[in-house]
Amino acid sequence: MRNIRLTLSYDGTNYVGWQVQSNGPSVQAAVEQAVFKLTGETVRLVAAGRTDSGVHALGQVANFATETAITCEKLQTGLQNFLADDVVIREVAEVDADFHATYSARWKRYRYVIFNNRVSEPFIRKYTWQYAAALDAAAMHDAAQVLLGTHDFRCFESHFPNKATSVRTVLESRVERCDGWPLWSRGENAGEFVRLDIAADGFLYNMVRAIVGTLLKVGRHQWTAEDVRRIIDTGDRSQAGETAPACGLYLEHVEY
Amino acid sequence: MRNIRLTLSYDGTNYVGWQVQSNGPSVQAAVEQAVFKLTGETVRLVAAGRTDSGVHALGQVANFATETAITCEKLQTGLQNFLADDVVIREVAEVDADFHATYSARWKRYRYVIFNNRVSEPFIRKYTWQYAAALDAAAMHDAAQVLLGTHDFRCFESHFPNKATSVRTVLESRVERCDGWPLWSRGENAGEFVRLDIAADGFLYNMVRAIVGTLLKVGRHQWTAEDVRRIIDTGDRSQAGETAPACGLYLEHVEY
Repeated sequence: MRNIRLTLSYDGTNYVGWQVQSNGPSVQAAVEQAVFKLTGETVRLVAAGRTDSGVHALGQVANFATETAITCEKLQTGLQNFLADDVVIREVAEVDADFHATYSARWKRYRYVIFNNRVSEPFIRKYTWQYAAALDAAAMHDAAQVLLGTHDFRCFESHFPNKATSVRTVLESRVERCDGWPLWSRGENAGEFVRLDIAADGFLYNMVRAIVGTLLKVGRHQWTAEDVRRIIDTGDRSQAGETAPACGLYLEHVEY
Repeated sequence: MRNIRLTLSYDGTNYVGWQVQSNGPSVQAAVEQAVFKLTGETVRLVAAGRTDSGVHALGQVANFATETAITCEKLQTGLQNFLADDVVIREVAEVDADFHATYSARWKRYRYVIFNNRVSEPFIRKYTWQYAAALDAAAMHDAAQVLLGTHDFRCFESHFPNKATSVRTVLESRVERCDGWPLWSRGENAGEFVRLDIAADGFLYNMVRAIVGTLLKVGRHQWTAEDVRRIIDTGDRSQAGETAPACGLYLEHVEY
């Protein structure tokens, strides 16, 4: 058996999420069906992160075992032919038998994008969270530094307890105000995005979106970095901010 | 009667174009319906450019006559409430009675965006034309300079003759390779967009898309700037390049 690793980008708008579910189309089912159409094999994909409904991926990683002799290059074009254009196979590689997209991951990085503008923008409405009121990105960045290191993050976990432990290690945590996108720029949008990049050895359910809702309060000057530290210490989800919408969230990178 | 000018952005993907048509939803009908829901008045909008199906707008301008006493600020939020999120009212202003969005326009600028990458990108698939083969943007820019000034552009006009004259004056014509968009950037996309900005006192039917198809041949080193000059002189649509897809085109600005 060969072990094939896929790197995927997708627009999560029209999917119930990565994982196969009974209530609608999943990215996993779409890719498994493409494999079936191309190879005739029924495979089961495992992925690095089970992105939720409406959550996007820039660099999701998945793998599957197969008997097919098709080369990686031909798998890439062949699978793409059987996929809608909202799922893109960015890379196909043959990996060691013991590679497992979920368990072999050393860390993952998520990105959250806020479009910080009074007026919404049609071209990015599914790909950012539009937030009208002014945000202090520097204050958000300072508060985001509180997340670095190993902590019990149960205050940011929905449906606690769903894991043996809610202790995770955050490796990167950065908030930046970034420039408008050059494609559609009319000058007036410059610097009107606020972007969070956060890497950790693992993430709890809805953790990034709860962090965004919490940092947002800091950006509005309602809370301080010290409040964020205190909230983490309480371990109480009701103390943290609201869960930010799915549409601004991307699984950006998985490191093995 | 008041004369109200609207500045609009829209994602043209789900519309048959600006103009009311029997075969599907138009942006014009959507805005006219919003005016009716807000004011109870049946109005008729005129616009600067009748964008085709799938063509987008960053700065479409339209106007209508109304008896309503609603302030411009309240018109903006009120109309937006009755519009889907793929049409955004960017500005509402009261203008002189003789302002006409079509006839008062001094010039318009269109933008065309090519995503010049081998692998497609799910988030921009409706908003750019993905073109895999390498393009020489500098050569395209040089050839685009041939368009400047007053010429008979019938070689770029579909369905000729549909106007009294196909002579137009091009005021700006610029091709640039521009950087990847910071929101989704993974480094690898940097500089992989090729963007045409072209301003003229008027445009013939499908003119910008025919120009893009022609400049593309220059970018592929199949034609030169001199060939473009020669093609303009022939006045023959069959000599020019193919019509580029609608999804990369934006009505960017209208000057009055």
